[in-house]
Amino acid sequence: MHTSAIDQRPAPLDLSHHFSRTAKARHESRVKEFYRYFAIPGIANLAGGLPNAEFFPYTTLEASLVPPERFKPTPNRPNGPLGGVPRGVSSTLLTEQRATTAHLLVPKSSGTSNRLHEIDLKTALQYGTAQGYPPLYDFLRQITRENMHPNVPYADGPEIVLTCGSTDGFNKAIETFSNEWSAEKQPVHEREGILVEEFCYMNAVQCVQPRGLQVVPVGMDDEGMRASGLGGLRDTLRNWDESRGKRPHLMYTVTIGQNPTSSTLSLPRRTELYELCKEYDVIIIEDEPYWYMQFPSVIGPDIAQRYFPKSPSDITGAKGSSGFDFLDSLMPSYISIDTDGRVVRLDTFSKTISPGCRLGWITAQPALIERILRFTEVATQQPSGFVQSIVAEHLIGPHNLCDGGRGGRKDGKGWAVEGWVRWLAGLRGAYERRMQTMCRVLEDGKYMLTSKGLGSKGYTTTEPWSIIDRLQMYNFVWPRGGMFVWIKIYLGTHPLHGKVEPPKLSQALWVHLTTKPYLVLVAPGTIFSPTPEISKSKGFEYYRLCFAAVEDDEIEAASHRFVKGVNSFWAKKNLDEVEEILGVCSDGYKLMYGGPHFELLTMSS
Amino acid sequence: MHTSAIDQRPAPLDLSHHFSRTAKARHESRVKEFYRYFAIPGIANLAGGLPNAEFFPYTTLEASLVPPERFKPTPNRPNGPLGGVPRGVSSTLLTEQRATTAHLLVPKSSGTSNRLHEIDLKTALQYGTAQGYPPLYDFLRQITRENMHPNVPYADGPEIVLTCGSTDGFNKAIETFSNEWSAEKQPVHEREGILVEEFCYMNAVQCVQPRGLQVVPVGMDDEGMRASGLGGLRDTLRNWDESRGKRPHLMYTVTIGQNPTSSTLSLPRRTELYELCKEYDVIIIEDEPYWYMQFPSVIGPDIAQRYFPKSPSDITGAKGSSGFDFLDSLMPSYISIDTDGRVVRLDTFSKTISPGCRLGWITAQPALIERILRFTEVATQQPSGFVQSIVAEHLIGPHNLCDGGRGGRKDGKGWAVEGWVRWLAGLRGAYERRMQTMCRVLEDGKYMLTSKGLGSKGYTTTEPWSIIDRLQMYNFVWPRGGMFVWIKIYLGTHPLHGKVEPPKLSQALWVHLTTKPYLVLVAPGTIFSPTPEISKSKGFEYYRLCFAAVEDDEIEAASHRFVKGVNSFWAKKNLDEVEEILGVCSDGYKLMYGGPHFELLTMSS
Repeated sequence: MHTSAIDQRPAPLDLSHHFSRTAKARHESRVKEFYRYFAIPGIANLAGGLPNAEFFPYTTLEASLVPPERFKPTPNRPNGPLGGVPRGVSSTLLTEQRATTAHLLVPKSSGTSNRLHEIDLKTALQYGTAQGYPPLYDFLRQITRENMHPNVPYADGPEIVLTCGSTDGFNKAIETFSNEWSAEKQPVHEREGILVEEFCYMNAVQCVQPRGLQVVPVGMDDEGMRASGLGGLRDTLRNWDESRGKRPHLMYTVTIGQNPTSSTLSLPRRTELYELCKEYDVIIIEDEPYWYMQFPSVIGPDIAQRYFPKSPSDITGAKGSSGFDFLDSLMPSYISIDTDGRVVRLDTFSKTISPGCRLGWITAQPALIERILRFTEVATQQPSGFVQSIVAEHLIGPHNLCDGGRGGRKDGKGWAVEGWVRWLAGLRGAYERRMQTMCRVLEDGKYMLTSKGLGSKGYTTTEPWSIIDRLQMYNFVWPRGGMFVWIKIYLGTHPLHGKVEPPKLSQALWVHLTTKPYLVLVAPGTIFSPTPEISKSKGFEYYRLCFAAVEDDEIEAASHRFVKGVNSFWAKKNLDEVEEILGVCSDGYKLMYGGPHFELLTMSS
Repeated sequence: MHTSAIDQRPAPLDLSHHFSRTAKARHESRVKEFYRYFAIPGIANLAGGLPNAEFFPYTTLEASLVPPERFKPTPNRPNGPLGGVPRGVSSTLLTEQRATTAHLLVPKSSGTSNRLHEIDLKTALQYGTAQGYPPLYDFLRQITRENMHPNVPYADGPEIVLTCGSTDGFNKAIETFSNEWSAEKQPVHEREGILVEEFCYMNAVQCVQPRGLQVVPVGMDDEGMRASGLGGLRDTLRNWDESRGKRPHLMYTVTIGQNPTSSTLSLPRRTELYELCKEYDVIIIEDEPYWYMQFPSVIGPDIAQRYFPKSPSDITGAKGSSGFDFLDSLMPSYISIDTDGRVVRLDTFSKTISPGCRLGWITAQPALIERILRFTEVATQQPSGFVQSIVAEHLIGPHNLCDGGRGGRKDGKGWAVEGWVRWLAGLRGAYERRMQTMCRVLEDGKYMLTSKGLGSKGYTTTEPWSIIDRLQMYNFVWPRGGMFVWIKIYLGTHPLHGKVEPPKLSQALWVHLTTKPYLVLVAPGTIFSPTPEISKSKGFEYYRLCFAAVEDDEIEAASHRFVKGVNSFWAKKNLDEVEEILGVCSDGYKLMYGGPHFELLTMSS
């Protein structure tokens, strides 16, 4: 962080014209006016409406947990695409500390009265401030400002507010920055819009559509959202047709390991998109659940040289370091180039601790956070004190070892920033190895070998190589981050191409894969299509495969079964066979269109 | 519950015309269409987007807790107003089990695959269903239907959905049942409205006002909302002036231990109000955080006979029993007389476990719950799995004692419904004793003794009784439930009445009470006034005193200090003295108007 007395950075822009009517109408909290009365020594506070902590049945909260060194990291700057990651190394490979478990304890009452150090049940189980539990808020604010984004370009840097996870965070941002619109009540020129990637996380779309927002897809390539070209951001904003509604003033984007495509935005592209958002006054809602899961091993040194910063100082004028090689090696957030203060970043513990935390935070310039905070006060109020105090004790630990608490380390201290960063680096390693296991198998299985001029003989051909031709059944880009492989099915190479409609063929393959002996369930691309047009024009050509969910030792076998299933499907030459597959599954076709709950698919398995 | 094969109850009404445009536009989840595929034996699920549970750092969650018998209950049907509660009995009086603490444990993985019994971290820390964590949802649904409201009059009974506490639940209900309105964009006849008690919980008002809803206060008496009379519900609805906006189709009400007035609605009044809501098609949002804290000791047998049901069978046609004397003795919810299915009830663990849980649930007819669930999916998703699994293990316990879990009882079982009801009865007892401690002191201190014809001589007069007159300084009704005493200050009896404006006099008293040696902070009635008119016309006459927050042994002393402070203020006869008090506190007057955070007043004390 900038430590000089005078902050040389320009102040963020006043973006209050983007607040929704509802957000503008919220009143500031008046409680601060009472603070001087609370502080009167010996005063009996009969004013508040809080139950006494003696009525809480819990006297401690505790947890066992693994050490931050559990997973082995992968190199931050590998020599080559697969450098340093030996084949067959499992992601469950643990370090020596495997057996070392720590026992965390949140005491009923800690000794301190400093609210930033006070982690105990008498405060955590009481009503709290919407900003977040003070010690956790303070810790997260600090790592956000000093470690994650040490180069925020506006004066005084960003503020944060805790959320009940990023879905909650997104909903709050939408409520703060967009007005509801009704076709039946309002003229179309009042309709607001939101830019999204052309394949995207559908929960976001499901959140905004009922409010009447127009969802405006922007074209993508392997990096993610495109700035230029037909359907790119420039084209979309410059040639906006006002008769469709207002030009969108919001963007929802996942820039690292994007869901579902796993695309990862380079720094030049990011800068280009940001400049367009500046020109057209767009607020960027950057959702980064996979931010720490960036996979340098798939980025060739040539690409790295051109598109990825080697250190934070590669960012225009930026000099700050996170203090950690791992964090410094990560692609910087939009926040790092946010001169205007128009980026609202969503972070979550869902992928770094667990989704069940329902805990995350929003980072943005203070004036935007303040309005989100006002809504939080009358909506969720604060994340659960159970998870806030446990995570606080886990990461921060007790103020001193006599306060009765025990942190996430075996010696009773908290993990601290160092432990947390080590954990993140290990997690990245575990995901990167899983990704490589899956991608190697998929890479090997892209092609069907056919006898030249004799047509397909299937996967196990024994013809000599000289008369063998290769037929590509699918393709994919090795993910540079995230949890998914995004596979494009080459339906045009299937023997029945031209005889069966491509969407139907894709659906038949999807069902075929779920049958014995293949037994793999994949996510159809249609359910990540933000508009029906995208779903119909190209969504059906894609499948999303997740390498994060199944057991570690199942990844390789399941990937092989996928390959075999595709191969055996390419051996089908009769229309009847496809009809038979779809006949078994009369509800098959509609399955291709999902709903908000698709992410829960593995819950029952 | 009705166990006969054919449900004789009429179906609830179709109230879908009350859904907001946003709520109507939400799509149903399509995930159920995938269920048959999840269930295929041996299938590898690469479709979902969930992290594997091996990546979660936690291997157990644990807690220590007190036994359900910790607090001694008070009688459900005392002989008289104060019967059975000896003076001086402290609410911290514990039973023999005081020292018995149980150690709860949520294991990483439980043995069972039955989702209703599976309480473990691999499910609780994963993404979950918006309805709630299956075992906890199932437990709460069952106690809601069978124990809390065994007499719901519509077919198939109510459904529930878990919330992040009742503030979250209220916000979700408002989003589902009301449309935003903007003076600048829409004609006034489209403005919707919500009925509230004339003194009410201001967080609710702060939630609806920015959406453009008109807040419509309804007159109250000691029971709560009035049905009849000027400003009562009938008058408000019947004589509604359409030029102000639409006649309100929503009501927000707290019927037990109402905040701030502690009023408690009788059954006849409840029925009368319900019939009006039926006639004018109003949806009732019933918020009952204090439902279990009903104080029969303040209800004389005459009142009880006339206004309170002796058993559930007193409710028209109702025959069901909760199975527990304690629950049977409680005033039934609006849900119990809800023939139409127009009641949306909010429950919370904030007062029964702790506010920091941020955990509660909504009860209503299934079609209304379904729309709230759709919003939940794109907003909070689910309450934190940390609190859900701990509370589930606490109340339900492990499926069997070999699954690795330990419940909230010392023997490792869960509290079960029996333990939970015993805990609630004990809590009620503790609150009831605190209330009595405070009210006895306040009762004794209502009057200032003055010498007839000689004017006030203050509190410690030694004049013989024959020439003493009593001057009443304030009045209150002993609360029949809740956490508060609502005190009306008789400003008209103050020596300076007529010389100082009453609001200013009230404010001076408020400040005076915070000074030595009185040192009590009370909540001014203005901050519970839903409109500025109420604040100005009568809000300033009231103070709310909370007997729940301070330490047990402080209640009596603080109450005495309040009485002494009022007495000493009544001894002030010079305008200068009042000016001096207010001069010390130049920000004093504005303090009388609070914001959404007022309930947090004790946080810093």
